[in-house]
Amino acid sequence: MIITLTTDFGLRDYFVGCVKGVILTIHPLVRLVDLTHEIPPHDVGSAAFALKETYRYFPKGTVHLAVVDPGVGSVRKPIIIQAEGALFVGPDNGIFSYILHETTASVFEIQKSKYIADAPSPTFQGRDLFAPAAAWLSRGIPPEEFGPKIPVPAGLGISLPRPFPGNRIEGAIVYIDRFGNLITNITTLQLGATPPRRLWTEDGREFAFKGCYAEGGAGLAAALINSSGHVEIFLTGGSAKDRLGLAVGNKIVVERG
Amino acid sequence: MIITLTTDFGLRDYFVGCVKGVILTIHPLVRLVDLTHEIPPHDVGSAAFALKETYRYFPKGTVHLAVVDPGVGSVRKPIIIQAEGALFVGPDNGIFSYILHETTASVFEIQKSKYIADAPSPTFQGRDLFAPAAAWLSRGIPPEEFGPKIPVPAGLGISLPRPFPGNRIEGAIVYIDRFGNLITNITTLQLGATPPRRLWTEDGREFAFKGCYAEGGAGLAAALINSSGHVEIFLTGGSAKDRLGLAVGNKIVVERG
Amino acid sequence: MIITLTTDFGLRDYFVGCVKGVILTIHPLVRLVDLTHEIPPHDVGSAAFALKETYRYFPKGTVHLAVVDPGVGSVRKPIIIQAEGALFVGPDNGIFSYILHETTASVFEIQKSKYIADAPSPTFQGRDLFAPAAAWLSRGIPPEEFGPKIPVPAGLGISLPRPFPGNRIEGAIVYIDRFGNLITNITTLQLGATPPRRLWTEDGREFAFKGCYAEGGAGLAAALINSSGHVEIFLTGGSAKDRLGLAVGNKIVVERG
Repeated sequence: MIITLTTDFGLRDYFVGCVKGVILTIHPLVRLVDLTHEIPPHDVGSAAFALKETYRYFPKGTVHLAVVDPGVGSVRKPIIIQAEGALFVGPDNGIFSYILHETTASVFEIQKSKYIADAPSPTFQGRDLFAPAAAWLSRGIPPEEFGPKIPVPAGLGISLPRPFPGNRIEGAIVYIDRFGNLITNITTLQLGATPPRRLWTEDGREFAFKGCYAEGGAGLAAALINSSGHVEIFLTGGSAKDRLGLAVGNKIVVERG
Repeated sequence: MIITLTTDFGLRDYFVGCVKGVILTIHPLVRLVDLTHEIPPHDVGSAAFALKETYRYFPKGTVHLAVVDPGVGSVRKPIIIQAEGALFVGPDNGIFSYILHETTASVFEIQKSKYIADAPSPTFQGRDLFAPAAAWLSRGIPPEEFGPKIPVPAGLGISLPRPFPGNRIEGAIVYIDRFGNLITNITTLQLGATPPRRLWTEDGREFAFKGCYAEGGAGLAAALINSSGHVEIFLTGGSAKDRLGLAVGNKIVVERG
Repeated sequence: MIITLTTDFGLRDYFVGCVKGVILTIHPLVRLVDLTHEIPPHDVGSAAFALKETYRYFPKGTVHLAVVDPGVGSVRKPIIIQAEGALFVGPDNGIFSYILHETTASVFEIQKSKYIADAPSPTFQGRDLFAPAAAWLSRGIPPEEFGPKIPVPAGLGISLPRPFPGNRIEGAIVYIDRFGNLITNITTLQLGATPPRRLWTEDGREFAFKGCYAEGGAGLAAALINSSGHVEIFLTGGSAKDRLGLAVGNKIVVERG
């Protein structure tokens, strides 16, 4: 049984260690796999995207613990999501937006005090609430044991691509990776069989499409369909983000044919 | 059986990999859990605090390997500490100060060459001395097998809170986390049942107490009792350290009632 | 069974998580050990050196997955290397130069589609080609099952030390660690029994040899033989790299006797 961990706790402090200790005390045989703990602090959107890109590669039955939680201790609910043979544990603050958008999911609120710490701290629910819940889930306690089934919570308002005049699709940058690649929400789902030809940014800069990173000319920015099927702007040997000055939320248009 | 790892080796080089290889060669079935390898280089005090905050969450019998060792190869002794059902392995340079302060511990010096590497390097005892010792401990070799029991070594001179006129307690900042939160040595132990009301820094700045991070006003610094029971100064949506210009060692005063 | 991971994927994105999910889906019981994912982007030379310094500490039978691959999707071949009882999986772009230089190795090209993903992405072979190959290897599929044995590929052109007039050896800086220590290619193999006495940089600066880091004077740069037997320039309490302005590739000379 596997529990993956996605947080903004960082790797220089003791927060991740506490979470792992709590889980291993409840379920000594579970396998812990760090997805990332370096989500930019409070960046729920990046965590949501990272989770969407990763969960499908794990075996059925995996529990995905995701805690990027700027509102810790406030009104948002702790939830468990059951979808696609996987389980997700975290706050209902939008971190599971993509999962809820692309699957048919059941959602449960975590209420039972027997599956969380005795006197949970209001400021570290990752350790006192979400970690124990994930550990008990990984031991086979079914999600409905933790509390009532609830309606699917509102998401982040995921930005979705839409048709644009002239065999074009309008989308937006939704994630920037550590290489400075600008990943958009336009995927092979929208593009269909027609290959993409050109990409424009809002301010009119135009980029050609390449087949792989090595095909881009040194120092030239270009677009490609990346390994997850998303349209992405890259710069061979450098950071497209730094060169182009673009950010998450910026609109782009892709032309097919 | 679990071995946790706390070092300042960093994650970009091959040092942690060597340590793990040595441990897994001696004990192929042990579980390795990274607490952190990003302790600032040679910052024994931060490592000591991180260890204190974490070890209690792990199952009994866990071995905690901690190597932040500016004096590697000099006169400080390699030791094993047995306390609270856990084992600690590292140098006697103060890294276990909090453990020794808050528990009743037995301390052993590591002397037996059969439990360390054949020709140990004077500059990488993490790999050649502490890693093998931790691995053999995790296989069940009792601490007294490694060498003689010795007196509890001197600690870091941990800064302790003390009473201050007017139902107040004087303490100090002892750790700063990656979010810039300023963690002090005043805990619920000193505060008792009376809730804290205000906190002052040495230069007279005053902060109110809140119940959780979400209660702080955007851009306003405030104090709270954090998830480990420590008084902490935070800044909603930012770094209290950067905003307030405070550092480890700075004194603060908390008023109750 | 162990698979180690060495990449430049970084820890802030979802790339490492995908690789681990793929491996655990194929081989749920394998142990994953991160060597490092913080190799500077595209720095094949640093990855090659990190791998050389680490692999010998792991048990026989370990599979070492190494993906720093600026030419992903171009003509370089995916290979498996069998050497010293270990297996290495990655591109033939020089990342295994030291392994191939210091061992007698057999090299196989990965060709069989049954051991890689169904529709491998040209831009993320770490996930779609190298991860599945490593997972199947760790399950006991012999390397010759993946494709034909091929000649040992050309390496990085590893810089090797050479004799220099006056009982001296000329070498070069080959790796810089996170502490700013400058690691050279001159090792105890070249030095033999005669202890080294002095080290010069190309521009004539001279450094004495010390026995360990603690012996260096505060703020003074000096040389030592490090824990892997390599001559290294260090600065007590600081970064030799920053102080001396030296880089990988810079020549140095060591005098013995």
